[in-house]
Amino acid sequence: MKITDIVLTPVAFRDPPLLNATGVHEPWALRTIVEVHTDEGLTGLGETYGDLGHLERLRAVAPALSGVDVYALNRVHAEVAATLGGATGADKHGLTGQITPEGTVNRVFSAFEVALLDIQGKAVGRPVADLLGGAVRDAVPYSAYLFYKWAGHPDAEPDEWGAALDPAGVVAQARKMIDEYGFGSIKLKGGVFPPEQEIEAIRALRAAFPDHPLRLDPNTAWTPRTSLEVARELDGVLEYLEDPTPDIPGMAEVAREAPMPLATNMCVVAFEHLAPAVAQNAVQVILSDHHYWGGLTRSRHLAAICDTFGIGLSMHSNSHLGISLAAMTHLAAATPNLNYACDTHYPWNRADDVVKPGVLSFVDGAVPVPAGPGLGVELDRDVLARLAENYRTCGIRQRDDTGYMRTVDPSYERKQPRW
Amino acid sequence: MKITDIVLTPVAFRDPPLLNATGVHEPWALRTIVEVHTDEGLTGLGETYGDLGHLERLRAVAPALSGVDVYALNRVHAEVAATLGGATGADKHGLTGQITPEGTVNRVFSAFEVALLDIQGKAVGRPVADLLGGAVRDAVPYSAYLFYKWAGHPDAEPDEWGAALDPAGVVAQARKMIDEYGFGSIKLKGGVFPPEQEIEAIRALRAAFPDHPLRLDPNTAWTPRTSLEVARELDGVLEYLEDPTPDIPGMAEVAREAPMPLATNMCVVAFEHLAPAVAQNAVQVILSDHHYWGGLTRSRHLAAICDTFGIGLSMHSNSHLGISLAAMTHLAAATPNLNYACDTHYPWNRADDVVKPGVLSFVDGAVPVPAGPGLGVELDRDVLARLAENYRTCGIRQRDDTGYMRTVDPSYERKQPRW
Repeated sequence: MKITDIVLTPVAFRDPPLLNATGVHEPWALRTIVEVHTDEGLTGLGETYGDLGHLERLRAVAPALSGVDVYALNRVHAEVAATLGGATGADKHGLTGQITPEGTVNRVFSAFEVALLDIQGKAVGRPVADLLGGAVRDAVPYSAYLFYKWAGHPDAEPDEWGAALDPAGVVAQARKMIDEYGFGSIKLKGGVFPPEQEIEAIRALRAAFPDHPLRLDPNTAWTPRTSLEVARELDGVLEYLEDPTPDIPGMAEVAREAPMPLATNMCVVAFEHLAPAVAQNAVQVILSDHHYWGGLTRSRHLAAICDTFGIGLSMHSNSHLGISLAAMTHLAAATPNLNYACDTHYPWNRADDVVKPGVLSFVDGAVPVPAGPGLGVELDRDVLARLAENYRTCGIRQRDDTGYMRTVDPSYERKQPRW
Repeated sequence: MKITDIVLTPVAFRDPPLLNATGVHEPWALRTIVEVHTDEGLTGLGETYGDLGHLERLRAVAPALSGVDVYALNRVHAEVAATLGGATGADKHGLTGQITPEGTVNRVFSAFEVALLDIQGKAVGRPVADLLGGAVRDAVPYSAYLFYKWAGHPDAEPDEWGAALDPAGVVAQARKMIDEYGFGSIKLKGGVFPPEQEIEAIRALRAAFPDHPLRLDPNTAWTPRTSLEVARELDGVLEYLEDPTPDIPGMAEVAREAPMPLATNMCVVAFEHLAPAVAQNAVQVILSDHHYWGGLTRSRHLAAICDTFGIGLSMHSNSHLGISLAAMTHLAAATPNLNYACDTHYPWNRADDVVKPGVLSFVDGAVPVPAGPGLGVELDRDVLARLAENYRTCGIRQRDDTGYMRTVDPSYERKQPRW
């Protein structure tokens, strides 16, 4: 079964003003929807980043895959590497750590790999989880992903979530999200306010939700010294502390004395980061993300590496739609050592989902593994057309949290670490 | 598609008197042939060790797999672990290093995993290599696996290979094997004679085959000091030196000064050995073996670990038949970083192969990847019946190279290191 055509559709969907260490989410988030067609009529879906540089790399690679067998994943990876020729991508928002040439290949490869696994699953009438060793859980627990946020975008009405700029606002947001979705774990995106205020927010969450595991992620906003101060303050309160400080040596310095595990999706984001991270015992939990670890099969390799080297495994998320949620759910379901609730931005963006409703749902904070063949999701063509039109008109071609923040506060500067 | 029945057939096949560091091969080598039947009529094949302890563990696990889905590999692994309950196997011959409870689970799991992948491949009409990411090579290069050997077993006629007890005999054996199979690499099983004699044999091979990469494997017969002396003597001659000395710390000591890479299939034989081996830089090449690394998928994980931590990857072999050769070939074909020619005992045992002829062949030292669905091989029922009868009558239930050697030389003692 050979690839005959690949359709790449950049889309934009509404995103609330979520604050983070480098600024604030713009009103539109970007993704690329990937459709791989074959000579036997089966089609596979993928979802990946929408930034223009990435989209251009996808477009450069797609023609090279024409005629390739849908099972030839090794060959597809080689074609991606050959086409990109050592190019290195970059994220203007700076939230996903150091992107290497290998990481750039894996980011592009992933989008096609997921679509090809979708086709393979359809060919044999099996969910993608079955191609990854079979689900070990019927539903995948996700965490309530809390953000400091404004009530609404500038010059717009407040959104349904309202403001969260202090502990009470954060607790209220958690309450609403947990009421609606049933999440059993909570993650707060930090790095927005001085650490004392974020410690206060975590303490307020602990008081309001005494049994929910809690995580705090300041996206490397702190020095090692500040990180250790926060870690000591939150001893016994956090399940893990995520990316408190930049780089493997900095994380290793904090890890030596921090009382809780350190997690990362910033200093270990490619296979070449693993050897130094292991040698320095820099991280105790890796937040995997198939979008940049090279797809679902390579994410299973990463899981095996974590298992082998005694590193915990959780899952990272960016703003995403349902194709990604389905892929994340199949992967997590088939990964026995993924024992932490996964991150997802889905509650913030689900209103614009491109997949037909009915398959993806949250039950007690967990997404039941789609049972249909492949990823088990179908494109809603009307929504896709609407989101593609959004993309054409929204004017955003590259996520830029810092630039957007500066339109509101011209004095805002990106600074890592900030405290 | 569910497992309905598992048939385990222990078999014995003729084996020449191949010498090694713990004795000599007995006249019969044991394996277990695994047939997994399903409710949809498809059947999968596996091949694994035939030692009685292992066979009993396979027999204990098989009933627990009845009714399990053929894609539920994670669940099968869990069932194996639960059934074995922490049991630890042992090899009387002592040639495969430390067997742990995890390693014992993976040895049992592997036999079923290969059979289930055979079924999965048949279900979708694809070779197993396609389920592992697709072949990156059409044929898998193997090495000429040379042994010191007697002309024949005691009280038996000389076999077609004749004696190889000195450099000239080893060169003659290499010549015959390379003439027949076209191998492009040579491995000599050492640890039999004092190191000076084996160095001499390697030098004779180098003179006779100036362009063939050469390997020497004394199966931990040497102290670290002797290992280093040999390594220095063979600087520039060996592609790698395999298991010169026991244990990770010993290998690390040698690796610090040896001029060539050290390879192992003895000190790193389970995932739990990897972290200490990496930390100590004990080995530069791992000889993978799906029979004890937990099957083909876990061997792909091992390959990813090797790639990630800068360790070379080759492939180990025990005396085996064609089902194993097919599985090894699919795996190696789909593993891009398996860049060394693989080991195989097949030339020593192929006359008794249980698979129907026509699929497995050596062309210029390489086995073309079987193109049919699944493993692409079929059982020859007549041969299987004959080998099963051999098993019933041969009297061997556990490979015991040392015990057999003692029947010839009662003064023989196992000693590691010996020199």
